[in-house]
Amino acid sequence: MEIRTNYAADNYTIHVDHGILESRLANYSAGYDAVHFLVDHNVYELYKSSVLSFIDSPIILEGGEASKSFDAFKRITEALLERGVQRHHLIVVVGGGAVGDAGGFAAATVLRGVDYIQVPTTLLAHDSSIGGKTAINSTHGKNLIGVFYRPKAVIYDLAFLETLPDDEMLSGFGEVFKHALLNNEETVRNLMAKTQEQISLDVLKPFIIRGIETKMHYVLNDEKESGIRKHLNLGHTLGHAIEYKYKMPHGIAVVLGLYFMMFLSNRVEGRELFDLDHFKQYFIHHGYPIQKLKSIDEEEMMALMGRDKKNQSRGAIGFVLMKSIGRCHFTEIENTELKKYLSYLKESL
Amino acid sequence: MEIRTNYAADNYTIHVDHGILESRLANYSAGYDAVHFLVDHNVYELYKSSVLSFIDSPIILEGGEASKSFDAFKRITEALLERGVQRHHLIVVVGGGAVGDAGGFAAATVLRGVDYIQVPTTLLAHDSSIGGKTAINSTHGKNLIGVFYRPKAVIYDLAFLETLPDDEMLSGFGEVFKHALLNNEETVRNLMAKTQEQISLDVLKPFIIRGIETKMHYVLNDEKESGIRKHLNLGHTLGHAIEYKYKMPHGIAVVLGLYFMMFLSNRVEGRELFDLDHFKQYFIHHGYPIQKLKSIDEEEMMALMGRDKKNQSRGAIGFVLMKSIGRCHFTEIENTELKKYLSYLKESL
Ligand SMILES: NC(=O)c1ccc[n+]([C@@H]2O[C@H](COP(=O)([O-])OP(=O)(O)OC[C@H]3O[C@@H](n4cnc5c(N)ncnc54)[C@H](O)[C@@H]3O)[C@@H](O)[C@H]2O)c1
Ligand SMILES: NC(=O)c1ccc[n+]([C@@H]2O[C@H](COP(=O)([O-])OP(=O)(O)OC[C@H]3O[C@@H](n4cnc5c(N)ncnc54)[C@H](O)[C@@H]3O)[C@@H](O)[C@H]2O)c1
Repeated sequence: MEIRTNYAADNYTIHVDHGILESRLANYSAGYDAVHFLVDHNVYELYKSSVLSFIDSPIILEGGEASKSFDAFKRITEALLERGVQRHHLIVVVGGGAVGDAGGFAAATVLRGVDYIQVPTTLLAHDSSIGGKTAINSTHGKNLIGVFYRPKAVIYDLAFLETLPDDEMLSGFGEVFKHALLNNEETVRNLMAKTQEQISLDVLKPFIIRGIETKMHYVLNDEKESGIRKHLNLGHTLGHAIEYKYKMPHGIAVVLGLYFMMFLSNRVEGRELFDLDHFKQYFIHHGYPIQKLKSIDEEEMMALMGRDKKNQSRGAIGFVLMKSIGRCHFTEIENTELKKYLSYLKESL
Repeated sequence: MEIRTNYAADNYTIHVDHGILESRLANYSAGYDAVHFLVDHNVYELYKSSVLSFIDSPIILEGGEASKSFDAFKRITEALLERGVQRHHLIVVVGGGAVGDAGGFAAATVLRGVDYIQVPTTLLAHDSSIGGKTAINSTHGKNLIGVFYRPKAVIYDLAFLETLPDDEMLSGFGEVFKHALLNNEETVRNLMAKTQEQISLDVLKPFIIRGIETKMHYVLNDEKESGIRKHLNLGHTLGHAIEYKYKMPHGIAVVLGLYFMMFLSNRVEGRELFDLDHFKQYFIHHGYPIQKLKSIDEEEMMALMGRDKKNQSRGAIGFVLMKSIGRCHFTEIENTELKKYLSYLKESL
């Protein structure tokens, strides 16, 4: 399966399938004098004698957020230069969303930009590898230093997903679910039906592909995030605050944020757009800690949401809400109102 | 005096004059919620109670190459975030070429890019502040990490130039001279006539402006340095090697490189395009250490030139040479040939 971007220029292909890495990559690397691999430590340990056995002496990145520090940035770029990276070389970044962000930032900045290919290895990375955002973390918050830099290709080999820890599956599925919500009612109904009992990789492929297409749609129409790309932030306003406070995997916190988005959309519209019980039971069945929302501190959550780099207003916080599944709008909710809604949410659980 | 870029989009103005900083800047800052200043330590000490007295608590950068380390990059971006920098703020970078490069890279990457204005304060920075290149240094070489990122404006207040140390004047003048060579015979003749006795600031302004226009011409036609922007590298191939080896200010080493370019152009064309004696006397009169070329080690210089990130061929080194003043071409010279030319150069001095 292939998805092609349609920017005005600098387009690239996203390849999605099982067992495609080595062959697809060969087509690209043929055009370069040399290829340098940046590989997630955990992924390399799991796959060095199978899927990744064709790779010679990669540069190993810690994996996870540790790859996104200033120190790691220095190590990665210096390692590339040590190996003599040149402008007509190719960098291939293999790993989860964190390694993708860190490796992408290194590729974007070493020699002022060397071509690179993303090879995402987590379910969440179906999201993070699309859209050209690269970043490292500051002590002041996540992803605060980075650039927009498009890869030459994304090769999403689903073979990697088999070794994902449970938490990582749940986290990635959170973004799959968000993309289904952005899509339409039928996609959500289908997804929930196919994953009623359990979230198994077998049924996910079409939804992953839909998810990529959905994300692409927003990104293509607004690469630099000045308008509708904001809709991708669905569930993320409270999600980020919860992720920060409870040190929860990103996509799991996003599901809690999505639940609040549904709750808030119902309230703001004054009618039951979302059957909250239905979604709550589904999320809890799969292990998302919806009940955690009962114990949040309203003031604390509001302070954290106000700090978000996407939130620039005073006295109010912006949310992406829905009129119906597939139809988003951006609304600012005044602090006093919002505090009430957060209390109602807690009472309702 | 104002020069306007003419890219397809994202154009900006370069303002060049005496005593214009505060008033010109006011026009730009009015459009932003807040302004953050990054200022060269030495410049701030010299001008905090005069030209820069309107600035409140700037972020101070070391000044010189110390600003271009990974550690400084971390300090600068964290300081901006500490002060609550947001996407709709403006960053103003005041200093020499080093601070311009470092501050530009910080502006390009914090929050994935915040608008910035360059305020160059050295003669050399008439060159470095134009063209949108930002960078920091690696242990493997200068400017190896960076991005292309255009400022919203360049405000070149010539008032700053009065306190430049002699070496910095000579260094900056090296690039002024290079731009005259790229221009035409008349500009070179004029420049040499007006600076026959000494290089005084009074006569430089029109040549600085011509220099900016010349650099703009190349940059506008080839922002990402795939073609003719290479011509700006005139004199830089040997220049960089000498700068590295003898730790000489950039533009002074470039003048030595320009002298070798003239020597080589004569040899390659087989006729006297450049009156070497005339140029040699002029350069020596102003204090450029042309005689240093007599003691270079050919092998060492060739190894250093081969390492340059702009030099990608094996067994040969690329040079920008001239057919006549104002007409450049790019030539690769084989290593064995080049070694001979370097020996001839030494003998000739
Ligand atoms: N650039 C974007 O647009 C964007 C969007 C969303 C999220 N992100 C970023 O993505 C990151 C989260 O990504 P993530 O959820 O993939 O987490 P991750 O990259 O931190 O990976 C989680 C863990 O799983 C391991 N891992 C990776 N692939 C594996 C595999 N196939 N089998 C077993 N273990 C594997 C990693 O080594 C790590 O320990 C965050 O840093 C977030 O900021 C970026
Ligand atoms: N981005 C580009 O396209 C480009 C092009 C050429 C050079 N450069 C970079 O520019 C840098 C060299 O720039 P530079 O020659 O301006 O040197 P610099 O920035 O290192 O400044 C030299 C010294 O002069 C001081 N100084 C600055 N302004 C002063 C003033 N008005 N009065 C007194 N002292 C002052 C500085 O604090 C420093 O100590 C190098 O790092 C080089 O890589 C970049």
